[in-house]
Amino acid sequence: MTTPSFRGVYPILATPFRDDERVDDDSLRTLLAFMAGLGVEGVTVLGVLGEANRMSDRERESVVRTAVEVAGGRLSVIVGTSHPGTRATIELGRMAAALGADALMVAPSAEPVPNEARVAEYYGRVCAEAPLPVVLQDHPASTGVHMSVAAIVRIVADNARIACIKAEAVPSAAKIEALSAALTRPVPMLTGLGALYGQFDLEKGSSGYNTGFAFPEVLQAHLAAWRGGDRRFARRIWQHFLPLIVFEQQPGVAVRKEILRRRGLLAAATVRHPGAGLAPGSAQQLTTLLEDTMPGVDITRPLDVAAVIGA
Amino acid sequence: MTTPSFRGVYPILATPFRDDERVDDDSLRTLLAFMAGLGVEGVTVLGVLGEANRMSDRERESVVRTAVEVAGGRLSVIVGTSHPGTRATIELGRMAAALGADALMVAPSAEPVPNEARVAEYYGRVCAEAPLPVVLQDHPASTGVHMSVAAIVRIVADNARIACIKAEAVPSAAKIEALSAALTRPVPMLTGLGALYGQFDLEKGSSGYNTGFAFPEVLQAHLAAWRGGDRRFARRIWQHFLPLIVFEQQPGVAVRKEILRRRGLLAAATVRHPGAGLAPGSAQQLTTLLEDTMPGVDITRPLDVAAVIGA
Amino acid sequence: MTTPSFRGVYPILATPFRDDERVDDDSLRTLLAFMAGLGVEGVTVLGVLGEANRMSDRERESVVRTAVEVAGGRLSVIVGTSHPGTRATIELGRMAAALGADALMVAPSAEPVPNEARVAEYYGRVCAEAPLPVVLQDHPASTGVHMSVAAIVRIVADNARIACIKAEAVPSAAKIEALSAALTRPVPMLTGLGALYGQFDLEKGSSGYNTGFAFPEVLQAHLAAWRGGDRRFARRIWQHFLPLIVFEQQPGVAVRKEILRRRGLLAAATVRHPGAGLAPGSAQQLTTLLEDTMPGVDITRPLDVAAVIGA
Amino acid sequence: MTTPSFRGVYPILATPFRDDERVDDDSLRTLLAFMAGLGVEGVTVLGVLGEANRMSDRERESVVRTAVEVAGGRLSVIVGTSHPGTRATIELGRMAAALGADALMVAPSAEPVPNEARVAEYYGRVCAEAPLPVVLQDHPASTGVHMSVAAIVRIVADNARIACIKAEAVPSAAKIEALSAALTRPVPMLTGLGALYGQFDLEKGSSGYNTGFAFPEVLQAHLAAWRGGDRRFARRIWQHFLPLIVFEQQPGVAVRKEILRRRGLLAAATVRHPGAGLAPGSAQQLTTLLEDTMPGVDITRPLDVAAVIGA
Repeated sequence: MTTPSFRGVYPILATPFRDDERVDDDSLRTLLAFMAGLGVEGVTVLGVLGEANRMSDRERESVVRTAVEVAGGRLSVIVGTSHPGTRATIELGRMAAALGADALMVAPSAEPVPNEARVAEYYGRVCAEAPLPVVLQDHPASTGVHMSVAAIVRIVADNARIACIKAEAVPSAAKIEALSAALTRPVPMLTGLGALYGQFDLEKGSSGYNTGFAFPEVLQAHLAAWRGGDRRFARRIWQHFLPLIVFEQQPGVAVRKEILRRRGLLAAATVRHPGAGLAPGSAQQLTTLLEDTMPGVDITRPLDVAAVIGA
Repeated sequence: MTTPSFRGVYPILATPFRDDERVDDDSLRTLLAFMAGLGVEGVTVLGVLGEANRMSDRERESVVRTAVEVAGGRLSVIVGTSHPGTRATIELGRMAAALGADALMVAPSAEPVPNEARVAEYYGRVCAEAPLPVVLQDHPASTGVHMSVAAIVRIVADNARIACIKAEAVPSAAKIEALSAALTRPVPMLTGLGALYGQFDLEKGSSGYNTGFAFPEVLQAHLAAWRGGDRRFARRIWQHFLPLIVFEQQPGVAVRKEILRRRGLLAAATVRHPGAGLAPGSAQQLTTLLEDTMPGVDITRPLDVAAVIGA
Repeated sequence: MTTPSFRGVYPILATPFRDDERVDDDSLRTLLAFMAGLGVEGVTVLGVLGEANRMSDRERESVVRTAVEVAGGRLSVIVGTSHPGTRATIELGRMAAALGADALMVAPSAEPVPNEARVAEYYGRVCAEAPLPVVLQDHPASTGVHMSVAAIVRIVADNARIACIKAEAVPSAAKIEALSAALTRPVPMLTGLGALYGQFDLEKGSSGYNTGFAFPEVLQAHLAAWRGGDRRFARRIWQHFLPLIVFEQQPGVAVRKEILRRRGLLAAATVRHPGAGLAPGSAQQLTTLLEDTMPGVDITRPLDVAAVIGA
Repeated sequence: MTTPSFRGVYPILATPFRDDERVDDDSLRTLLAFMAGLGVEGVTVLGVLGEANRMSDRERESVVRTAVEVAGGRLSVIVGTSHPGTRATIELGRMAAALGADALMVAPSAEPVPNEARVAEYYGRVCAEAPLPVVLQDHPASTGVHMSVAAIVRIVADNARIACIKAEAVPSAAKIEALSAALTRPVPMLTGLGALYGQFDLEKGSSGYNTGFAFPEVLQAHLAAWRGGDRRFARRIWQHFLPLIVFEQQPGVAVRKEILRRRGLLAAATVRHPGAGLAPGSAQQLTTLLEDTMPGVDITRPLDVAAVIGA
């Protein structure tokens, strides 16, 4: 086990599926090995991009098992264990811990009558039973749950298990700034939302990335430049890839899976039904975009980011 | 296996939990035996009232196993298998069939970009693989998916597996009427929504009940009176229990579980967190309501409905 | 001006429209005169049932003018002034006051990022400028805004102008009870939601009705019986009309307008587009329901409630 | 009157407010004159950015009056007339036409029971009475109404008045492509969403911009380069300003109003309550961003886009 620092780059992984929608364990291994090769600090499996909500419990288990095995201590494995039931969230956490994962990522679920106290209880119960550090995921776009700064501050204060906030509530930079000022116990905050607000979040105190952008080496370079104090270079990196980041903002996970397929990391770009597949016409548009962004580059290999942006 | 007629009363069952939220198999058996004793046509497990969304796959399996065992062919067992993933819905259906269930209940899931064609595909794929008859559940309040009359008509026409519509989209009586006129292949339509619109639905062609009202014998009496042509008596039954039906409309499942506990059918009224438990004050209010509705009656035994309403 | 007590029955009025959707001032006068004749404490115009959101500002003004004129001091006129803009809410309040209204009804609006502090500010600003007492309307079903008990308690404590809570957040009886215990300054709470939970709300401390049920004299009788200490009789009244109350729960305002038309109070049951009109088949069903509820009764005259229920 | 081509750049205008939230007619004139000076094809007033939903009818009227007066035939004036009521939408359209506007922008409103046929009726009625060409705005993020490609195709086919589609349903490029293929009568489609997907939309057939990005001259340059066949240059322009485009994606209108204030076009950046003002810290972040994007440039004058990007 590798206790994560939650500072650095933690890609969110897609779950690879074969053409017939079965979990593609081989591709998952390829994907994990690639991430390990990049030297990222860790990965998160079974998040929104991982289509966890469309999988059976047994399938989730198999993904965690493979992730831990391939990670082999080289990188942290964070497991998404959000579930509409508190007890089920706890059990998924136990499963992940038993299989050797390093941390859990937990988001609340919407209830018919929204209730901030119930959300706090949810985190209280989950943290009380969590065998591992917990990432609090604040992502109203997928959960429908809006947590105020004050509510998050209390939850973090009350639960020592919470080791990180995945800051995905817009405006994210402003919320990171407000949380930084208000938290009674500092915890790292990671940038999500596909890195759309990456530069702005870093400026306000984000400690790195925890998102599914299909070129994590770009995020590594961005963060390294930022940490190294070369703000101008950092910004240049982020801006160079911003059209790609924007293209990935389109709803669903199809675009990212297609890019990962082209990178040779997935055997198929299959999205589980009823998730939307790639729109007709988008494949060709993606080809143009990739060629514009990094002409002539072999994307099946880790990018030489400096070379790509002509630095 | 008992092929259901989907005409009659099919109570939706709560899933009993112990104080510590574990599945309470003993209470489940009690509940099932009670329903069998009432002579209902069948039961549905793992619906919204069954808190299926807060359970693990293994727990779902155990509930189906017990239901089938206790039913013992005396009553049909319908299993809720809705899942955000089409493939997972199919797999839950296979599991239910393998364990001996009699039918499946399936509702669509909301996607970021609503798409009626995708919903039709969902039913198409699920039905193509379904080893059992399928109940199409039309319940926007829980799914967030609104299916037009035209869409449902096409889905029913295209999928012979669909054997019933659980008509829970308000206005339900009007939708039943519109569907009756438009369906190219007639299928029975069952009334849900806690029987709130029971009388009105029957008048427009509902073939019975598939809902969680905690006194199914009342629904049996209502339906029997209606079928027997005694509309006035039918209405009188429904109206006598309407305050209780309304009381159960309050959000969540706590009220119903508390009534079932008082009926001796559940050892505990536990709702799984983060579902809301009984509001303070509601227990006492329920006591008054039950006493008003059936003074002096032992509710742990099947009601003598005629006696209760003084017929 | 008649300062309302907010104890008693305050019908919410439909806005009458002609066949061509123009405001029907004559019918509005008929409606108001009928309410005055019933002896209700007041009326509310321009609420959800009043289709205020589909009207122009000038039309709203004309409705207030007529209401105040016909009321003539005999009954209070409460004016719905909710608006997505705080300043516009304030201006609508000034308009209502200038025309002689007696109170304002105000609900908050949903913003892209929900924010309880902003809702409190909204009430703070509106109350600071309100020339009249304010009814805080808590109706998440129409506003999408969920206010916690704590939030409402603070708003009431901070704004002396708030003179009443329209308690329409389910579970309403439980929320009335919780508010009663928590309010630092008692204010009357009125029951809405079409009287669906009327009996239960009264048991928990509701001070009366502020809703659009098309037979306000029934609510008057219910409340009078309850206040007179005859709980059994109160319950009997409510239950007798409960099927009608339930029938009116169907979405939209078409059912109520049709009943009011049959009562001779509206020249037409027109609902403004794109609001839904009466579903085909519902007119006939309503005829049966009215005949079942009060056989042979002339509904164009105030009901003799005791006679109808055979007391 | 200037019949718009709906090809080119049509900025959506913010409505200027003074510190006390009154409409600031002087700033509105400044803003309009600036746009006229840029040579844009037209402007849209009273859209989402215009905070039309927080304004009174009289205020709306005053904005249209000023817009038409300042435009003086030099540029088209499109007026947002969406309203929850069909009749009110029609009346707002008449008002706009009477005051000399050139076109109307109309989006549908969400109803409790979504109904595609009702949306079609809405456009049918509005178009039948519209004295001016109509822009169909497809923006589910603000309306909550999802229109399928088939539905839009039918609406356009049935209503000759519809002269343009404002394509703001994600994925926008894919939807533009699908509509292009399916429309039985071609109509121009304009890009909105703050130009976030601008490059991608142009590639799929967008005929220009109809959005609130605070530097419309950038969009003019982008479009001109694209039309001139210099795809690479077009892309370079868009990408250069993409960080600013992204920064403006943050919820609400505060960021844009602050930029317009800095450009000398608004006396105050006031957003009407309860809309969110600029988050603390965002002002400083914006300063950095503007300086990064166009170092040393006087933004109160029209940008020399080629110079800014170093072309």
